[in-house]
Amino acid sequence: MSEQNIPYKIYLHEHEMPKQWYNMRADMKHKPAPLLNPGTLKPMTEEELSGVFCTELAKQELDDSTPYIDIPEEILKFYKMYRPSPLVRAYCLEEKLQTPAKIYYKFEGNNTSGSHKLNSAIAQAYYAKQQGLKGVTTETGAGQWGTALSMACSYFDLDCRVYMVKVSYEQKPFRREVMRTYGASVTPSPSETTEVGRRILAEHPGTTGSLGCAISEAVEAAVGTEGYRYVLGSVLNQVLLHQSVIGLETKAAMDKYEITPDIIIGCAGGGSNLGGLISPFMGEKLRGERDYRFIAVEPASCPSFTRGKFAYDFCDTGKVCPLAKMYTLGSGFIPSANHAGGLRYHGMSSVLSQLYADGMMEARAVEQTAVFDAAEQFARVEGILPAPESSHAIRAAIDEALKCRETGEEKTILFGLTGTGYFDMVAYEKYHNGEMADYIPTDEELKPGFASLPGIE
Amino acid sequence: MSEQNIPYKIYLHEHEMPKQWYNMRADMKHKPAPLLNPGTLKPMTEEELSGVFCTELAKQELDDSTPYIDIPEEILKFYKMYRPSPLVRAYCLEEKLQTPAKIYYKFEGNNTSGSHKLNSAIAQAYYAKQQGLKGVTTETGAGQWGTALSMACSYFDLDCRVYMVKVSYEQKPFRREVMRTYGASVTPSPSETTEVGRRILAEHPGTTGSLGCAISEAVEAAVGTEGYRYVLGSVLNQVLLHQSVIGLETKAAMDKYEITPDIIIGCAGGGSNLGGLISPFMGEKLRGERDYRFIAVEPASCPSFTRGKFAYDFCDTGKVCPLAKMYTLGSGFIPSANHAGGLRYHGMSSVLSQLYADGMMEARAVEQTAVFDAAEQFARVEGILPAPESSHAIRAAIDEALKCRETGEEKTILFGLTGTGYFDMVAYEKYHNGEMADYIPTDEELKPGFASLPGIE
Repeated sequence: MSEQNIPYKIYLHEHEMPKQWYNMRADMKHKPAPLLNPGTLKPMTEEELSGVFCTELAKQELDDSTPYIDIPEEILKFYKMYRPSPLVRAYCLEEKLQTPAKIYYKFEGNNTSGSHKLNSAIAQAYYAKQQGLKGVTTETGAGQWGTALSMACSYFDLDCRVYMVKVSYEQKPFRREVMRTYGASVTPSPSETTEVGRRILAEHPGTTGSLGCAISEAVEAAVGTEGYRYVLGSVLNQVLLHQSVIGLETKAAMDKYEITPDIIIGCAGGGSNLGGLISPFMGEKLRGERDYRFIAVEPASCPSFTRGKFAYDFCDTGKVCPLAKMYTLGSGFIPSANHAGGLRYHGMSSVLSQLYADGMMEARAVEQTAVFDAAEQFARVEGILPAPESSHAIRAAIDEALKCRETGEEKTILFGLTGTGYFDMVAYEKYHNGEMADYIPTDEELKPGFASLPGIE
Repeated sequence: MSEQNIPYKIYLHEHEMPKQWYNMRADMKHKPAPLLNPGTLKPMTEEELSGVFCTELAKQELDDSTPYIDIPEEILKFYKMYRPSPLVRAYCLEEKLQTPAKIYYKFEGNNTSGSHKLNSAIAQAYYAKQQGLKGVTTETGAGQWGTALSMACSYFDLDCRVYMVKVSYEQKPFRREVMRTYGASVTPSPSETTEVGRRILAEHPGTTGSLGCAISEAVEAAVGTEGYRYVLGSVLNQVLLHQSVIGLETKAAMDKYEITPDIIIGCAGGGSNLGGLISPFMGEKLRGERDYRFIAVEPASCPSFTRGKFAYDFCDTGKVCPLAKMYTLGSGFIPSANHAGGLRYHGMSSVLSQLYADGMMEARAVEQTAVFDAAEQFARVEGILPAPESSHAIRAAIDEALKCRETGEEKTILFGLTGTGYFDMVAYEKYHNGEMADYIPTDEELKPGFASLPGIE
């Protein structure tokens, strides 16, 4: 298609929007390793998983053979409230960089949760409601997931209990108020409300909490309360399944205008956005239909892919959750307090870990001042104030575009702009004031984390 | 058109977007009264205005006869970065209210400034750049306008100096950091950097500032600096002209799907959003082609339309600006500290004031807890966290929809959702904690404001 006919921002029509999620696992030759029961070390059964997750979600977690799964009508209806998200050609950024590369981004920040997290939150709330549950529990770090879940629960009139990492609870009171606006209860973690919280507080009295610790509390609260289940915003197979809507929309829009990306870039914490964005493209690669370069971008201060081990590990600090085989820094790993954004999880999606181990995708770690440089550069020309997490992908996209300037190649670069940074202005302020520093852990500093690995292959 | 074929969210195609602004004044039989020179009390000439404003903007300010004005190509290009904004059918709100009314809203919050203010900011920055200026000065209260202007100036590489009402500067540090991200300098007002600021500080040492005072400082800073002009985000005729893009897009989308609104509702502070939204509809009413009900909604604590006087008044506290004939509470009016959101300006657009005086539109005042009730109700079902200002319009739209429930009328209600409330969570927190109170000034309390009127008819 002639370039003049391609809109600046591509919005799919309602009838062009995906009606099914795509399950990447169905096309993987090497399936991701199963979750293990932490007691027996045997693969978790659907029945066991159903004690923690909603039954339908437990099924989705285990299903590695069905390629397409219908999106229920009520979820499609909710998606229409904020989807399709726009696929945008970054003309102004290209001009600023003087690059022959074509840069596109899929922007998932145009909803009140401020990120892509809502795509899975609404699905998980829906299945909880279907099952007749009273409510759900979860953890949140930076707060996007908690906000998304509170919005979804409010829509289905479900109770929502959020354990928020204490340092975020204190530093991001506005996120907490957004969750309260949607009727959620928010507890700083670790707390006295759970056994595991009390234990962690006794062992580390001054602790400001971690995501792994908040997960332990949320799981305990769900398992111990009648009519409640636990939900999680990343890492899990079911989450990548729901997030495939990002990639499916992107691919439909690109196919419509005959655009083919050469490089697809996403930031990676637990993998929900990256896994969702790449899904249908990776499907083509897995089936041998077409090749793409995929790049996962992670913080140098929390480098699961680039410096982690591919091994079974606990998903949480309290070791109450199943074990997952993944690239991990060890469940005992604690990211530096210096690190400003999200992407702090010690592990990584099992699906993405397997794909990385199989050489299907690349990964790179970037430092945070370079990330904020990219964020500010992007904001000034493209008008959107990006979240620090999303800015990892911007950094890599700019770097690839600059390489094209050197080589003269007209590559098409696609990246995921997962969200907005309105609640991250404290980090931006540090950056503006020159108070932001980089931190790359030494091998020595990574050792305690690895020591917490259970040693199961 | 059959209702099934109307999308849930209507996005115009690029080729359907307005290429011209609409100048409502051209169709008004009673033109708005001219600005007066505060020294001579004679109408401001283009030459006089050009000392304060960019020359092209001074022309637009005075032009009350050209109905359509071409939007320059570069502004159209910038508009494409965040426009068209969606026109959304509030199905979920209708269902919640059990109303036969059809509710639509035009959502202007999907850009980093978080509001409609960007529509005029980019136009004003463009004309400043065209004129070869170095930079512009302005004031900001809640911060939307300052953010919008800093984004626009960053795009055109203009210096941007913002005087921010001191209380907002202190309570909204995040807004300040967003402006800094876009390279603006932000000074709390009143400040020691201007003569008028020093005078006000000497007279009222503990003052937390006001919009009228920040305007005085910004004007002085512009007039006293080579290569600078002053720009304003509301009230002025030129601003309503630029904001007509909101109404033109809305009308194009409604016409495309054969939807006709019966009632059109907007919040009113200085009138920029309301004036922009109603423009093409009011044009039809002025030309006798079609009738609509228009409702301006203002805070009960700052009731310019409903309790103000229609008279000439100063636009600023320092009395350095021209006089405008408008509904006003007097330039000495200071809104209660209790009042949480924006919409704090003592006056009102001259265009809207004339239309109101001529009986072409209605106005009503609402109390703030009722406004936050509406905001939370809307957020929970429609997914968007609205700004307190925008929520005034939501309140009135809900009230009109509830009347339809009583009467059974299937009216079509359109309202302007001007922006998001991410930077207003302190106010939401007060509301959640039951610490928010209502305040309606007594007639006695309004007296000192009226006493500051210059007494010119």
